[in-house]
Amino acid sequence: TSEGRRKSCWYEEEIEQDLRWCYALNSILHTGASQYQDIALLDTRPFGKALVIDGKLQSAEMDEFIYHESLVHPALLHHPNPKTIFIMGGGEGSTAREILRHKNVDKVVMCDIDEQVVDFCKSYLVANREAFCDTRLHITINDARAELERREECFDVIIGDLADPIEGGPCYQLYTKSFYESTVKPRLNEGGIFVTQAGPAGVFSHTEVFSCIYNTLRQVFKYVVPYSAHIPSYADTWGWVMASDSPFKADTEELDARIKQRIKGENRYLDGKTFASASILSKAVRKSLDKETQVYTEGTARFIYGHGTAHKLNHAHA
Amino acid sequence: TSEGRRKSCWYEEEIEQDLRWCYALNSILHTGASQYQDIALLDTRPFGKALVIDGKLQSAEMDEFIYHESLVHPALLHHPNPKTIFIMGGGEGSTAREILRHKNVDKVVMCDIDEQVVDFCKSYLVANREAFCDTRLHITINDARAELERREECFDVIIGDLADPIEGGPCYQLYTKSFYESTVKPRLNEGGIFVTQAGPAGVFSHTEVFSCIYNTLRQVFKYVVPYSAHIPSYADTWGWVMASDSPFKADTEELDARIKQRIKGENRYLDGKTFASASILSKAVRKSLDKETQVYTEGTARFIYGHGTAHKLNHAHA
Amino acid sequence: TSEGRRKSCWYEEEIEQDLRWCYALNSILHTGASQYQDIALLDTRPFGKALVIDGKLQSAEMDEFIYHESLVHPALLHHPNPKTIFIMGGGEGSTAREILRHKNVDKVVMCDIDEQVVDFCKSYLVANREAFCDTRLHITINDARAELERREECFDVIIGDLADPIEGGPCYQLYTKSFYESTVKPRLNEGGIFVTQAGPAGVFSHTEVFSCIYNTLRQVFKYVVPYSAHIPSYADTWGWVMASDSPFKADTEELDARIKQRIKGENRYLDGKTFASASILSKAVRKSLDKETQVYTEGTARFIYGHGTAHKLNHAHA
Amino acid sequence: TSEGRRKSCWYEEEIEQDLRWCYALNSILHTGASQYQDIALLDTRPFGKALVIDGKLQSAEMDEFIYHESLVHPALLHHPNPKTIFIMGGGEGSTAREILRHKNVDKVVMCDIDEQVVDFCKSYLVANREAFCDTRLHITINDARAELERREECFDVIIGDLADPIEGGPCYQLYTKSFYESTVKPRLNEGGIFVTQAGPAGVFSHTEVFSCIYNTLRQVFKYVVPYSAHIPSYADTWGWVMASDSPFKADTEELDARIKQRIKGENRYLDGKTFASASILSKAVRKSLDKETQVYTEGTARFIYGHGTAHKLNHAHA
Repeated sequence: TSEGRRKSCWYEEEIEQDLRWCYALNSILHTGASQYQDIALLDTRPFGKALVIDGKLQSAEMDEFIYHESLVHPALLHHPNPKTIFIMGGGEGSTAREILRHKNVDKVVMCDIDEQVVDFCKSYLVANREAFCDTRLHITINDARAELERREECFDVIIGDLADPIEGGPCYQLYTKSFYESTVKPRLNEGGIFVTQAGPAGVFSHTEVFSCIYNTLRQVFKYVVPYSAHIPSYADTWGWVMASDSPFKADTEELDARIKQRIKGENRYLDGKTFASASILSKAVRKSLDKETQVYTEGTARFIYGHGTAHKLNHAHA
Repeated sequence: TSEGRRKSCWYEEEIEQDLRWCYALNSILHTGASQYQDIALLDTRPFGKALVIDGKLQSAEMDEFIYHESLVHPALLHHPNPKTIFIMGGGEGSTAREILRHKNVDKVVMCDIDEQVVDFCKSYLVANREAFCDTRLHITINDARAELERREECFDVIIGDLADPIEGGPCYQLYTKSFYESTVKPRLNEGGIFVTQAGPAGVFSHTEVFSCIYNTLRQVFKYVVPYSAHIPSYADTWGWVMASDSPFKADTEELDARIKQRIKGENRYLDGKTFASASILSKAVRKSLDKETQVYTEGTARFIYGHGTAHKLNHAHA
Repeated sequence: TSEGRRKSCWYEEEIEQDLRWCYALNSILHTGASQYQDIALLDTRPFGKALVIDGKLQSAEMDEFIYHESLVHPALLHHPNPKTIFIMGGGEGSTAREILRHKNVDKVVMCDIDEQVVDFCKSYLVANREAFCDTRLHITINDARAELERREECFDVIIGDLADPIEGGPCYQLYTKSFYESTVKPRLNEGGIFVTQAGPAGVFSHTEVFSCIYNTLRQVFKYVVPYSAHIPSYADTWGWVMASDSPFKADTEELDARIKQRIKGENRYLDGKTFASASILSKAVRKSLDKETQVYTEGTARFIYGHGTAHKLNHAHA
Repeated sequence: TSEGRRKSCWYEEEIEQDLRWCYALNSILHTGASQYQDIALLDTRPFGKALVIDGKLQSAEMDEFIYHESLVHPALLHHPNPKTIFIMGGGEGSTAREILRHKNVDKVVMCDIDEQVVDFCKSYLVANREAFCDTRLHITINDARAELERREECFDVIIGDLADPIEGGPCYQLYTKSFYESTVKPRLNEGGIFVTQAGPAGVFSHTEVFSCIYNTLRQVFKYVVPYSAHIPSYADTWGWVMASDSPFKADTEELDARIKQRIKGENRYLDGKTFASASILSKAVRKSLDKETQVYTEGTARFIYGHGTAHKLNHAHA
C-alpha cells in the first residue's frame, strides 16, 4: 500500500560538481569502513541493492551485469583458450563470478588491496557467494603492481577492475604506459589479452579518462579495441579498452558460437551483436579518441597529495 | 573565481518517481505558459541552456544535437531523394533546423499544437533562428492528425517529434496502429519513410513505450528499424523507430557518401558507423523487442481523464 | 575518520510544498506500517533517532524534550494537584513519560487509535521504555472521542497530542467547538485543565491552525493561554494552547517551586522563566490571534474524502 | 494555473554539513560578485526575494523585519535619546532603514567593507531605497575597525551587523574582547549602547558563537542583555547581545511609549512584550550562557588561513 507514496529517504551522488543523481532508498543494509574507504550496501528503489564506496556507487544489483559482462567476456571470448586470469582489483567478486562461468578457465587470481571490501562483499553480496567459494579462485590482498611483479607466472588474460586514473588517486600508476610495458605485458602469455575498465565514455565524459587510457594502450599494444555501453545506474555510458599484440579475429557469429560453447548459463547483456555495436563508437567519440595525444606516464602525474582523497573512486572498482 | 564554489540553485527532475536528476543552475532565463503547459528556458551548468516544459527537460543546448541528428538524418539519408517533409510536433525548431540542412529538401511543414511554445522557441533559441526564417519552412498551429487528414498532398518523409504515448496523454492517439494505417501511410509518397521518436530505450526503460511503438509499427509497415543513442542530459538511452514499405538499403559507406553530398555543414554525432552501432541493439533490448506483443490501439488506451496531466511530456517534444 | 566526509543518504521532508528540510542519515533503523500509516525510525546525523510517520517527522531524539515538556508540564504545574490524566493520542509514549515524572499523578490513560504505532514505539524508543512499563499507565486502543464518551470518570488534566486539524484529516473532529463543549469539558474535574498541541506557531505559520485552535478554545473556556517554542528539528516554532474555567494563577516562582516539589528528575527545557517567555507571543502573532474569527465546527469542516491522506500528519502526534 | 504544480528549481542551503534547507525558486533575479564574495538576489516561493551571499541566505523579503527590528530597536529604545549611530557592516541597507525610522536620530554612519554589496543592494532592494537616499545616512567603504579608530567622534549607539566570528573568517577580530575594550567602548558616548547580531541562538546552535559573544561582552560591559527570536527563513532562532555601562531601565510599558513617540510607522515584530519574551531565554540556553567561559581574544583565534573562506558568512550580515 505504501508503494505509491512519496519517498523520504534518498541516496544522492554527485556525478560531477554540478550534477546529481538521486535514488529513493528502502533501507541502508550494512555500513563499514576500511583503512582506505567507507563501504555501504544500500537497498535502493530504482536499482535494487547497491554497493557504495566513499559516496560513489560501485555496482547496483539490477544492472551490474552490464558492466561485468562487458568487462570480462569480450577479452575471454576473443582469446582462443583462456585458462589463467589475473584480476587487478575486483574485490566485489562480480568480475570473478563472470570469469568463473567460463568452463575452460582453470585459475583466477583476484588481487585487491582492501581486505575489508573483499570481506564485506563476501558476506553481503549474495549473487557472488558461489563465485567466492569456487576453488579455482585465489584471492590475494596486495597492491596489484607489487603482486604482478612478485609472481613469476604469466596469464592468458589480465583484467583491470580498478578505480579511475585520477591524478593523486590510488590507482593512477596502474594506468601508465610504463606499467603496461614493464609489468602487464611481461605477465601475459603469448596471445594474451589485457582489458581494463576505462571510465565514463559518454559524448562529453569520454575525455575525462577514456580517451587517454585508449591512447596510452595504443602506445604499448599492437591491437587496441575501445568499446562502451550505457549503464543506467551510473547515469552514463561506460568504457572499456581491450588490448593485445595478437589480432582480435572473432566476428559476431564466432563470438556467439564461443559463448554457447564456453560459458555456463546465459548472458543477459553481451552477445556477438551487442559487442559489435559496443565497439563501434559514435562519430563524436571516435574522432575525439583518434585525436587524443595525452599518454599516462609517471611523469605526467603530478602527485598532489590529498587531492585524490575526495575523488578517490570515480564510479570505478577498487 | 566563483566557478569552484558549491552551487546553491538547482534544477531537479523526477525521471521516475524514485529517481531524480539534478543540474546546478546559473540562471532562469525565461518563463512562460500556454493553455497546455508551462515553459522555461534555464541556464544550467552541466548542459547549457535547457528548454523545460512542465518540469520535463525537452532539450539541452549541449547535447540536443544527438537527439535531433538521430531523429532526422537516418530517415532522410535512407530516402533516395527526400523533397517534402512533414513534422508532427517539433515546435522547438531543432528538428526543422536539421531537416533544412539537407540541400535536396524543398518544403518542410511543421505542425505543432502549441503556438506559445513555437513563439517562445522562436524568440529565445538562438541556434534555431536561421531555421525559423528559412522560406522552405511552413509552420501550422494544429493537431497533427487533423492537419494530415485535412491536407491532400503527400510527403517523402513524415517525422514524429511528439510527447510519448502515455495513456490519457495528449499524444497517445498519434501512436496507434489505426493512426499509422489510416492517416500516416496514405500521406507518404511511394518509397516514403516514417520515423518517430520512441521514448527511453535503456536496458530497463525500453519497456515503457519503445518496444510497443516498435511492435505497433511492424504491424503496419514492411520494414521497421529501431535504433537508440545515449543522451547525457536525459540520463538515459533514447530510442527512435524508422519504418517504410520500401527496404532500407543504404549501408555505412553509402550513408557517409550521402551525408557528404546532401547535408550542409558537418554532423557532430551521426555518420554511417554511428547509425550502424545505433541500430544494433543490445541482446537484452533486442530480445525484449522481439517478444513484445502489445499494440497501441484506440481500444487499449483507457483514457483516464486527468491522468495524463502530470506526465504529459515525458522527455519528448510537443 | 568518516565524520568529515560528505554524506550521501538523506531524509527529506516537505515542510510545505515549496520548502524542504533535509537531514543526513546514518541509517534506517526500523520500518513498519499500520492500517493507517507508514512508520519509520531513522538514525539522523543532526537530530539523532527520529520517528517518522507517513513522511512527516514526529519526534527526534535530540529535541523531543522541548515539545513534550512544553505540552505536559505547564498544564500539570498550573493544576493544584493533578492526579488523573487523559492523553488523546500520544502513542509515541513521550507524553506519558513526562506525565509520569509527576509524583502526584496516580493514573494516566493514553488513548491512541493506532496499535501498530504504539507497539513500534514500545519496541524501539528506548527513552520511553520505563514509562511504558509504569503501572500507572493504562493504554487503550480507540478513537479518543469514543473513549472519552464511553468512560464515566473525569480527569484533572486532558492532553491533546494529536495530528493537526486538517479538514478531512483523521483528527479534525477532535478540535471542534462542539467536541470541546460536549466531550472534553464534561470529562474535566472541577478546576481541570485541557491542553493541546496546536500546530506551527511561527510568525507566518501560526495562521495554519494555531490561531484557530486558540480562537475555538476561547469560545468554550474562560481562561485560555497560547504559548510557543522553537523546535529545531521541526524547522519552526511550535504552539500549544492551555484552557480552563479556573484562572491560571501560578507565577514564575511558584512554577519553579512546584517543579522542584513534584517532578522527578530535572527538566531540560521548561522552568518558570521559560514558560513566561513562551506565553508572551510576539507582536505579530499576538495581533493575529486577537483578530482571529474562525472557529472549528463540524459545519466548517467540509469533509473531502481522500483529501486528508497525504497531509494526514502535519508534524503532529497521532 | 501553475501554482499547484511541482516546482523544479530550488535554492539549497547547507545550514550545517548534515542539514539542508531548500526553497522552491521562481527566478534568479540578479547575480554579481565582488572581490570578497558572490552576490545573488533570488525570487523564492516561500520567502519572497532573498539576498544570498556566498551561498548563505542573508535576508529574505518576507521576514527580514524580524532580524532588523530586533537588531536596531531594543538598543535605540533603551537609550534615552539616541542621535548618532554607527553601523559596522550593514551594507544591505535594512539596518540603516530601521534606524532612520527613529525621528530623534540625526546621523547614521554605515561602514561596510564591500562596495559591490552596497551598490547591489542600493540597486535592487526596493524596500531600502528611501533609506539609501536619506541625507542623514553616511556610507563609508572601509574595515569597521579602521574606520572607528580613524574617526574622532563618539556615537550614542554602535551596531554590529557583521558576519559571525568564525576563526579565520573576515570578521573574527570585530568580536574580540580587546576590540570591544579598545575600539568600541572609547567610541561610545556617555550612556551609549553597543548591540551586535550574535549568530544562531537555538537550543543547540547557541553554542556556536552566541554564548561566547555574550561571555566576551560581559567581560567588558557592566550590563549585558542577550535576546533571541525565531526567523523562519533562517530555519533557526537568532541571537543578539546588547551591552552598556549604564543600566537598561525601560520596562515593557516604557518601551511601548517610546515606540509610539519616536518611531515613524508601525513595527511589525517588536514591541515591549515581544522584547520581554525575547530577552527571557529558555532554561536550556540560559544555563548554558551562564556557564560559558570562552572569551574571544586575538590569541584564541588560531588563524587557519583558508579555513574561513567556505564558512565566511554564516547567516550574518557583512
